Amino acid sequence: MRGAVLYGPRDVRLEEREAPKIIEPTDAIIRLPATCVCGSDLWDYRGIDPFTQPTPMGHEYCGIVEEVGRAVTTIKRGQFVIGSFFASDNTCPNCQAGYQSSCQHRELVGGAQAGMLRVPLADGTLVATPDPPSDDLIPSLLTLSDVMGTGWFAAEAANVKPGTTSAVVGDGAVGLLGVLSARQMGAERIIAMSRHEPRQKLAREFGATDIVTERGDDGVARIQELTDGIGADSVLECVGTHESMMQAIRSTRPGGFVGYVGVPHGVELDTHELFFAHVHLHGGPAPVRRFLPELIDLVWNRKINPGKVFDLTLPLENVAEGYRAMDERRAIKTLLRP
Amino acid sequence: MRGAVLYGPRDVRLEEREAPKIIEPTDAIIRLPATCVCGSDLWDYRGIDPFTQPTPMGHEYCGIVEEVGRAVTTIKRGQFVIGSFFASDNTCPNCQAGYQSSCQHRELVGGAQAGMLRVPLADGTLVATPDPPSDDLIPSLLTLSDVMGTGWFAAEAANVKPGTTSAVVGDGAVGLLGVLSARQMGAERIIAMSRHEPRQKLAREFGATDIVTERGDDGVARIQELTDGIGADSVLECVGTHESMMQAIRSTRPGGFVGYVGVPHGVELDTHELFFAHVHLHGGPAPVRRFLPELIDLVWNRKINPGKVFDLTLPLENVAEGYRAMDERRAIKTLLRP
Repeated sequence: MRGAVLYGPRDVRLEEREAPKIIEPTDAIIRLPATCVCGSDLWDYRGIDPFTQPTPMGHEYCGIVEEVGRAVTTIKRGQFVIGSFFASDNTCPNCQAGYQSSCQHRELVGGAQAGMLRVPLADGTLVATPDPPSDDLIPSLLTLSDVMGTGWFAAEAANVKPGTTSAVVGDGAVGLLGVLSARQMGAERIIAMSRHEPRQKLAREFGATDIVTERGDDGVARIQELTDGIGADSVLECVGTHESMMQAIRSTRPGGFVGYVGVPHGVELDTHELFFAHVHLHGGPAPVRRFLPELIDLVWNRKINPGKVFDLTLPLENVAEGYRAMDERRAIKTLLRP
Repeated sequence: MRGAVLYGPRDVRLEEREAPKIIEPTDAIIRLPATCVCGSDLWDYRGIDPFTQPTPMGHEYCGIVEEVGRAVTTIKRGQFVIGSFFASDNTCPNCQAGYQSSCQHRELVGGAQAGMLRVPLADGTLVATPDPPSDDLIPSLLTLSDVMGTGWFAAEAANVKPGTTSAVVGDGAVGLLGVLSARQMGAERIIAMSRHEPRQKLAREFGATDIVTERGDDGVARIQELTDGIGADSVLECVGTHESMMQAIRSTRPGGFVGYVGVPHGVELDTHELFFAHVHLHGGPAPVRRFLPELIDLVWNRKINPGKVFDLTLPLENVAEGYRAMDERRAIKTLLRP
């Protein structure tokens, strides 16, 4: 089996890897019709996150169950399934509270940029579609594994409600799907912050009513201007840098909500400022498992089409170009066909 | 008129000050039957907050309206009123959203450790009791001006709901009234963190079901132990130090809520840790005005007795001793009788 392996900054290679097999009796092996590159893969790709050894890449997946361990009871061979980047038992108190990405037995899923994948805790992690999907649904179903679930969590953590004003910081795939999520949750006004024309266009398609091209303090000033000097009710932080986080907090009205899903890199909160900002702050790794049934239903019934974030499709052989295109912001998100 | 003035670290003096008068037409002047020392006054008293000039102290007040400006329409001479440390117009969008302490026209009220006080924006700030209160109600009514309203906000920001488990970090007056608030909001289990026997006693009287005497990592370990390794649903942070804030965050279950009302002093949040902690964070200066009608009703009908936090009553002349007793933790909170 061939899979993508990161060897160092900007050095990702497709190489022969051992095909995954059942290790724990709760595992499943799935065959992947498609996989993709995540914005968070770029932290590693750019050498920003510490890196020690060649690492099989990829944590977004969906596909056909090929084999299950002997302790797996609900997931069956032949089902088309989707799971989260954090495997979870879905029974512990944290899972029951809806925070499966803080499952007491969680395991990171890795190596999904390949043709086959081992998923731990299959019964707790995987959710099956009603039937095998038609091929055109696969990109959208694949987004539910992370990027769509994460945008959805940003909107939910930011308390998006019908009739309210949302702002979205970040025009990567997560931010764009944050726009889609805010629209789906009934936000009346959705301000997307983006300087990139193709991304602005997709943001509008997903439901953005306003585009703000300014960043940092200027971006905050523009949001304040658009909201009568009060700030937005809900702000989705979908980047993870210090600048984006401060932009989010300062764009939120007192009593408003910041939902943050960008893994923080160098974010330093001025806690005195945060105190007087009066915002609600919630976020973290998205508990994708919680949202899967609802999101599968929305995709299955063609109510949402999050797969539109894939503006580049490549065969898995060209994975290196898939990373490069995202790194250079030539592509929003790369779909890879094994 | 005599009032308390801070001259420098641990140097508070009672001195002759000019009696307040109407400056703006929206002002009211009230006569104070009692006033008190706030835990937050100790930041100044201890020289921790920057200090430039002699400062009239005190921001907690209730009393009889003596005079109102010509633009004041709802507050009348002779009413017994309570207000917040932040005067607010109660009409701007932030006030309407329930965040009067972020009012677009807010003004800090100061100099309340005296016999008389000027309160700006009287109509928006002050709430009258149904009738003049009996003398024994005055301490409890006085707490509503800040300390009780702040404990209440901590519990509300921490999302205390019937049947849940709350923990309270801080055994000052705010923390103790956070316990009372959590009980009032229906928490089933309330864990008070305190090493001081008289404060533990009052915490139990206010509704604490468990006492944890350990602090820092040991305190966190104890909370985890008491909650089956999950953490509390709601944690009230009522101190404002780095240690207390980290203790609060680490004592909260994934998906749980931290309500923080201690003005942050030296708090440095590890945003990576915060992200993976999955907690909700909300706090700030309490929007006391929002809570006044409900809290006045509870005190008036003797459903709560927050005035019990005053374990030292002194004539205003002895204000210096009032500060000393709190600074040395000999007193929980000092009531001053002008």
